[in-house]
Amino acid sequence: MADSFGERLQERIRALGPLCVGIDPSRQLLESWGRTDSVEGLEFFSLAVLEAVTDTAAVIKPQVAFFERFGSAGFRVLERLIADARDAHVMVIGDAKRADIGSTNEGYAEAWLHDRSPLCCDAVTVNPYLGFAALEPLLSAASATGRGVFVLSATSNSDERAIQSARTSENESVEEMVLRTVAGFNKRDDGLGSVGIVLGATRDKPRFNLASLGGPYLVPGVGMQGATPENVARIFDRCPPGTVLVSVSRAILQAGPERAGLRDAAQRWRDDLSGALL
Amino acid sequence: MADSFGERLQERIRALGPLCVGIDPSRQLLESWGRTDSVEGLEFFSLAVLEAVTDTAAVIKPQVAFFERFGSAGFRVLERLIADARDAHVMVIGDAKRADIGSTNEGYAEAWLHDRSPLCCDAVTVNPYLGFAALEPLLSAASATGRGVFVLSATSNSDERAIQSARTSENESVEEMVLRTVAGFNKRDDGLGSVGIVLGATRDKPRFNLASLGGPYLVPGVGMQGATPENVARIFDRCPPGTVLVSVSRAILQAGPERAGLRDAAQRWRDDLSGALL
Repeated sequence: MADSFGERLQERIRALGPLCVGIDPSRQLLESWGRTDSVEGLEFFSLAVLEAVTDTAAVIKPQVAFFERFGSAGFRVLERLIADARDAHVMVIGDAKRADIGSTNEGYAEAWLHDRSPLCCDAVTVNPYLGFAALEPLLSAASATGRGVFVLSATSNSDERAIQSARTSENESVEEMVLRTVAGFNKRDDGLGSVGIVLGATRDKPRFNLASLGGPYLVPGVGMQGATPENVARIFDRCPPGTVLVSVSRAILQAGPERAGLRDAAQRWRDDLSGALL
Repeated sequence: MADSFGERLQERIRALGPLCVGIDPSRQLLESWGRTDSVEGLEFFSLAVLEAVTDTAAVIKPQVAFFERFGSAGFRVLERLIADARDAHVMVIGDAKRADIGSTNEGYAEAWLHDRSPLCCDAVTVNPYLGFAALEPLLSAASATGRGVFVLSATSNSDERAIQSARTSENESVEEMVLRTVAGFNKRDDGLGSVGIVLGATRDKPRFNLASLGGPYLVPGVGMQGATPENVARIFDRCPPGTVLVSVSRAILQAGPERAGLRDAAQRWRDDLSGALL
């Protein structure tokens, strides 16, 4: 039986540090790199970032929306990026934020977590709006294949969060309910489990004891969205070593297109995050 | 200025009836049609359904998950299906249930609602978990291009709905808050607006006055999921004519692969729904 995703990730964070580099080939970033907003620009950008951060990033996190905007041709680039990352032994989280009813989530599980899929990643992000019973095909696939699922709890955008702060019939907030439910899933595994949480570093520390999750955290919101390594350290202060993975995107990507600039930015962020968290 | 999506849809429902045929090429359905679970099977299935329902369905609704499971090759089939539907003057709702933070939703808007994208549909389904401010790029793109967005309120799965029934700080349920917020967006438009709601027919009638939405409903849950045309009629009894679009997937698709069987099943569902709703 293979190690769980959580354990593989923990080992990698211990070896390389807690940096996840978000690969967000938006129109604005391609243009700021002096590239056309095209499939060629998309491919150049994605592979350049991967090459520059291979020795620094524990994980890369392609943002699927920015590939999807080119349709099947964009997905071909994403497939190449995933394959190249695998060859370079860099872990990949597909930031897809997928969710549907259970019978449909079988399709998303096949897409993102099954060996035979060209989109197969080490983990995928998912949205809990349709409930945890509906997510079961994704959770089962992750558990069966040694891969992971990160469920959105409190996202990094602070503009409006009526749903995430709504109260369930148990009188806890939705984001706390998500944390508690995921902790329950991870109890099924020995050691660190395969179900993680997305929790923005722009948010207040929740009441839930974050150290008891039994799985990893993926933490966006650092850099251009305003949070600092110190914010992350404060929120996750009692979590076990190697369970907090911090995603930085634009604050690194804007240092391109020169590889040296990208590499330096990634190393600086990695060192700052390691210093604050370890 | 082009007609709004809501008005185009209303016209089409008045002409053809309220049937939306869901195209769900799952492994199980491909096998039940005697096809391999492959890209070839996917293409055969999708184009056969489109051809069989062209004169009966107001709209087709490809379920993106079942194309995505084949990666870029599956998306190429989806692009062909969308193009063929456009040529046949059948409207298309991309059932993608996408959502992310605002800057990322720009990418999803480009993918599903911009003219230059090979995935461009008449409308796309979206998930409200990250808030309505985050959805703004999708709502704006729909309004600017005469296309539509359907926001999930109460989904058709009845297994677990802790989030959809949670109470916001205004002490209304999340699903009611989504309805009320969408009604507010539609007030920006003259006539029927471009923002619709996904509301499962397996659910109770909400307290919100559904006739006041100012936009269309997409109603799953009929057929294999257990709801009947009469359930739909009861829930939406006072809505204006042509604003309720009912999605039927497996109950029609399992009548394939023979075109005559598919055509008959679609006509029967269309007639039953027209009879109950009009």
